[in-house]
Amino acid sequence: MAGTPVTVIGLGLMGRALATALMNAGHPTTVWNRTPGKAQALVEAGASQAPTVEAAVAAAPLVIVCVRDYDAVRGLLAPAEPALAGRVLVNLTSGASDEARAMAEWAAERGAEYLDGAIMMTPPGIGAPETVILYGGPPALYEAHEPALRVLGGGTTLISSDVGLPSLYDVALLGIMWSTFNGFMHGAALLGTEKIPATDFLPMATGWLRGVATFLTAYAQQIDDGAFAAEDATLETQVPPVRHLIHESRIRGVDATLAEYTEALLTEAIGRGHALDSYARVIDHFRP
Amino acid sequence: MAGTPVTVIGLGLMGRALATALMNAGHPTTVWNRTPGKAQALVEAGASQAPTVEAAVAAAPLVIVCVRDYDAVRGLLAPAEPALAGRVLVNLTSGASDEARAMAEWAAERGAEYLDGAIMMTPPGIGAPETVILYGGPPALYEAHEPALRVLGGGTTLISSDVGLPSLYDVALLGIMWSTFNGFMHGAALLGTEKIPATDFLPMATGWLRGVATFLTAYAQQIDDGAFAAEDATLETQVPPVRHLIHESRIRGVDATLAEYTEALLTEAIGRGHALDSYARVIDHFRP
Repeated sequence: MAGTPVTVIGLGLMGRALATALMNAGHPTTVWNRTPGKAQALVEAGASQAPTVEAAVAAAPLVIVCVRDYDAVRGLLAPAEPALAGRVLVNLTSGASDEARAMAEWAAERGAEYLDGAIMMTPPGIGAPETVILYGGPPALYEAHEPALRVLGGGTTLISSDVGLPSLYDVALLGIMWSTFNGFMHGAALLGTEKIPATDFLPMATGWLRGVATFLTAYAQQIDDGAFAAEDATLETQVPPVRHLIHESRIRGVDATLAEYTEALLTEAIGRGHALDSYARVIDHFRP
Repeated sequence: MAGTPVTVIGLGLMGRALATALMNAGHPTTVWNRTPGKAQALVEAGASQAPTVEAAVAAAPLVIVCVRDYDAVRGLLAPAEPALAGRVLVNLTSGASDEARAMAEWAAERGAEYLDGAIMMTPPGIGAPETVILYGGPPALYEAHEPALRVLGGGTTLISSDVGLPSLYDVALLGIMWSTFNGFMHGAALLGTEKIPATDFLPMATGWLRGVATFLTAYAQQIDDGAFAAEDATLETQVPPVRHLIHESRIRGVDATLAEYTEALLTEAIGRGHALDSYARVIDHFRP
């Protein structure tokens, strides 16, 4: 059974991975890129290279775009606007929630249906069963195209009818990633002052992260309940160890900013009378 | 078979959990606390309450101390100094590496052998097979007492003959924990502005953390090798998404400090000519 024809616009690392996964799953795949050379390997593997972006859009009912940013989406698609009517535009470009909502309006004005997606994976993971891609848009539209979209990642999910939310989840998850990366770099640098290899620290750090995930499970419920009983450790008991971290960092010449930030969050919450609450209480600091 | 007699000094939440685990494993257990009332439940469960700290130290060859800080260890043990000679002092109090090294000298001057430990778990986890307790000190001393120490946590490990290192690992791991907590709070607050419950975000965040651990595995090797090939994503490709995170935070009134810090790390590394390296390159920023 032949799959739905699909067009992929934008052939960076991610776009090429998307086109490859679609071809591997039997979807007739048309590709287009501003610099046409990027299409060569895909064409050799069976993709059709459209001569113009308008021809690319016209070649399939489902048009997937993954480029540098939302301005680039509008810029690249400008010559193809007449061909957009009646098609489904799936935008996998990274951006912010307000940009995604504006893009949905832009598509609607041109007669296109619109899904916005956020790929929570690097290009080598495209097509893997565990790869998460989050979508926002009309549920019926998502369901109609879900089989084709699922070949890009087994963890493909519609999270909301709001096209802005995939971008928001995207940055929220990336924020956790960068924070965890930075915490690891800080720790690896501290241990590095004692010539301890990062690969010695790694198994302890990754085992520890599994415990951290368990704490987060309790904290998420506390945040939703608005009740912050310290079943693990109170805020006040965490002040001495964070000061040890600051002290170790300073005496070893390692940037203590992250620990100072945590100390400020603790002392702020304690100052508001929450000394005996759990760490989840610092959500108050982040709330608008 | 009766276990080695053990003394536990300091009966806060953690000290009580330690004493309970030792009793459950069949170790004759003597306890002492500055305010004696804390011992009551333990005595009812079979512990001997020493009348003085000197009697507590004299009651067992293995003396475990877990109190507020290292100054408190010295202060509490002062009246018991004559009894310390020939005993093993196991200090599970949280502190910094320089404090642990000074404490080992203090113990040696009083004729006591010394192990320093860091408990990577909250009191309810004491005695569990997965509970990690890191030790530093003479390997032969650790091995001699390892059976008694292992009843406090199945993940009991000697990490170094240097008594300072458990404290350093401790704060390095806590730093990862706080960073990850803060990243989660930031994300939960962002999604909260769209009325998305933290418990909806949680499974995505914890699944995502498993992927983050995979990235860290690659990064640890890169740090040790001093070679930062971007197999996942280059530093320069991470600048637009971190700016989206800053933008989302600002328009929603959520503290953007963490994202601004990440942006600064990225731009610093890119400014040093590492635009095409992996995120592990930011280790340079943390190194002294």
